[in-house]
Amino acid sequence: MFLGRVVGEVWATKKSADLDGRRLLVIQALDERREPGAAKVTPVVAVDPLGAGFGQHVVVAFGKAARVAAGGDGDLAFEAAVVGIVDDFDVPGAPAHWRSPVPDGEPKLRSGS
Amino acid sequence: MFLGRVVGEVWATKKSADLDGRRLLVIQALDERREPGAAKVTPVVAVDPLGAGFGQHVVVAFGKAARVAAGGDGDLAFEAAVVGIVDDFDVPGAPAHWRSPVPDGEPKLRSGS
Amino acid sequence: MFLGRVVGEVWATKKSADLDGRRLLVIQALDERREPGAAKVTPVVAVDPLGAGFGQHVVVAFGKAARVAAGGDGDLAFEAAVVGIVDDFDVPGAPAHWRSPVPDGEPKLRSGS
Amino acid sequence: MFLGRVVGEVWATKKSADLDGRRLLVIQALDERREPGAAKVTPVVAVDPLGAGFGQHVVVAFGKAARVAAGGDGDLAFEAAVVGIVDDFDVPGAPAHWRSPVPDGEPKLRSGS
Amino acid sequence: MFLGRVVGEVWATKKSADLDGRRLLVIQALDERREPGAAKVTPVVAVDPLGAGFGQHVVVAFGKAARVAAGGDGDLAFEAAVVGIVDDFDVPGAPAHWRSPVPDGEPKLRSGS
Repeated sequence: MFLGRVVGEVWATKKSADLDGRRLLVIQALDERREPGAAKVTPVVAVDPLGAGFGQHVVVAFGKAARVAAGGDGDLAFEAAVVGIVDDFDVPGAPAHWRSPVPDGEPKLRSGS
Repeated sequence: MFLGRVVGEVWATKKSADLDGRRLLVIQALDERREPGAAKVTPVVAVDPLGAGFGQHVVVAFGKAARVAAGGDGDLAFEAAVVGIVDDFDVPGAPAHWRSPVPDGEPKLRSGS
Repeated sequence: MFLGRVVGEVWATKKSADLDGRRLLVIQALDERREPGAAKVTPVVAVDPLGAGFGQHVVVAFGKAARVAAGGDGDLAFEAAVVGIVDDFDVPGAPAHWRSPVPDGEPKLRSGS
Repeated sequence: MFLGRVVGEVWATKKSADLDGRRLLVIQALDERREPGAAKVTPVVAVDPLGAGFGQHVVVAFGKAARVAAGGDGDLAFEAAVVGIVDDFDVPGAPAHWRSPVPDGEPKLRSGS
Repeated sequence: MFLGRVVGEVWATKKSADLDGRRLLVIQALDERREPGAAKVTPVVAVDPLGAGFGQHVVVAFGKAARVAAGGDGDLAFEAAVVGIVDDFDVPGAPAHWRSPVPDGEPKLRSGS
C-alpha cells in the first residue's frame, strides 16, 4: 500500500465489464521527488469504492487486496483500489508538499469531484 | 493499473499456447519523465482484448486482473492486459504530452493498427 | 520483503472494514539513496500486528504474506505488513544512516508511538 | 510482461528442486535508458521453456503466468518465464539499440546458446 | 527472479511465527548502477533455505514461488526466498563488479556466515 493524493480521473467507454460503474481515479504517490506543480512519478489508476475527492490523501492497495476492498470477489479485472481516505498523517520527515491538499498552481478537476 | 499509451506491437511465432491469437501491445506509461519523441521508462507488453490502436490511451491491469479481463480464467500465461480504452481523462497537473495522441516526430505503426 | 524504518503513521476514518482497528505505519526502505533528514523513495503503508515504534527497523512483507502475517486469512483488503521488528542487522556495506534509529533533525511522531 | 533481450545465463548446482533441468536466462528489459555495451537496469532471471538464444528478443511474464507457461502447475519455485520469442516488433519511437540483436562490443555467450 | 549477492543478515526476536528459525538474508541485486563499496539500490530481505554465505551470488524468487521454495506451503508470512546459489554465470555485458565475490573494502559479516 502507499500514501497518495488524488490528482485526476479517467473515463473509458470501452472497458472490461468489471469496471462498469466504477470510478477510476489517478493517484500520485506522495514521495520526496515531487516539485510543486509537476507530477514526478508514474501515477496509479485505482478504482474508488470510498468516494475520494480531488486533492485528498488516500491509501491505495494492490492485487487481491484491491479486489477484496472494492468488490468482495477475487475474480475482477482490476488490481488497485482506494482502501482508505486519510484524515491525518504524522510523518515527521515528510516534505511540505505532502501536507498541502492541492499544490499551488494546480487547477481543480473539471468535474469538481 | 496505470494509464498508458499504445506505442507498438510485438509478434512472436514461438510462444506459450495461451498467447495464440492474442495481440501483444507495447504500452508506455504516461508519466512526467517523458520528453517528446523518446520513450523514457520500460514499456509493458500487454494482451489486448479491446482492440486499442496506436497512440490511444489505455488503462492496463496486471496479474490475475489481466487474466480475468482477457480470458476469464486464472490459469493463463500472461499477466498484463488492456482493461479500458480511455475516452478522456482529467489530470490537472499532467504535462502537455499526456494529451497529445501521437507526439510529434513519432511515425505510426506499420500495420496501421 | 525489505528492510525499512518506521517514519510515520496514517489515520483514516473512512476505510475498508478490514483496516478497522489496525495501525497503518508509513515505512521507508533503507537504501543508499537517502540523505539525512529527507526521505528519498516512495514509502510503503503497512499494517502492523507487532507494535513497532517510530524509528525502529522492521522487515515488511507484501501480498498474501502480509495477510497471513497480520490476519491469518487470505481475503483481506491490505497487502503490506510488518513481519519482524529488527533487533540487529549485519550489512557491512550499508551507509551510516542505516544504523541511526532516528536521523538528526527528524522530530519524533506526535503520538510518540 | 516486458520486452527484453537475452544477455546471459546462470548456473546453480544448489537450488530449489523445481529449477532442476530448467535453463535460467538473464534478460535485460528493452528501454530507453540503455547505452551501447552497458546494461543499465536490473536484469531479470527467467526460466526458458522455449529455447531462446543469446541476443534474441523475448517477452517475459511474471508470477503465476510464468508458472503456467513453464510448468503448467501453480506451485513451482519460480516466478518469471519466457513466454514468447519475438520475430518482430513495431515500436516507432524505440531507440536504435532495440533493433540490434547483439550490440557492438558485447561478446557472445561462452555456451553459444 | 533476480541475480543478487548476499550482503548481510537481519535478526528479529519479535516476528511473525512463520519466520521462526529461518535465516533472513539481505540481498543486493546485481545491476550496473553499483559502485565499489556502496550499495546503490534497495536491497531485498529473503529467507534462505539453501545456506548461502556472505558474498555469494544467488537467485531470488518472489511471491508464491518463494513460499514453495522455502516452505512448501502457500500460506506463509514471507514472499522472497533464495531459490539457487549460483556456481557461475555468463553475462557478457556485465560490469566487472558482478564477478568479484566480495568487493574491495567491504568487510565480511560478523557472523562469518
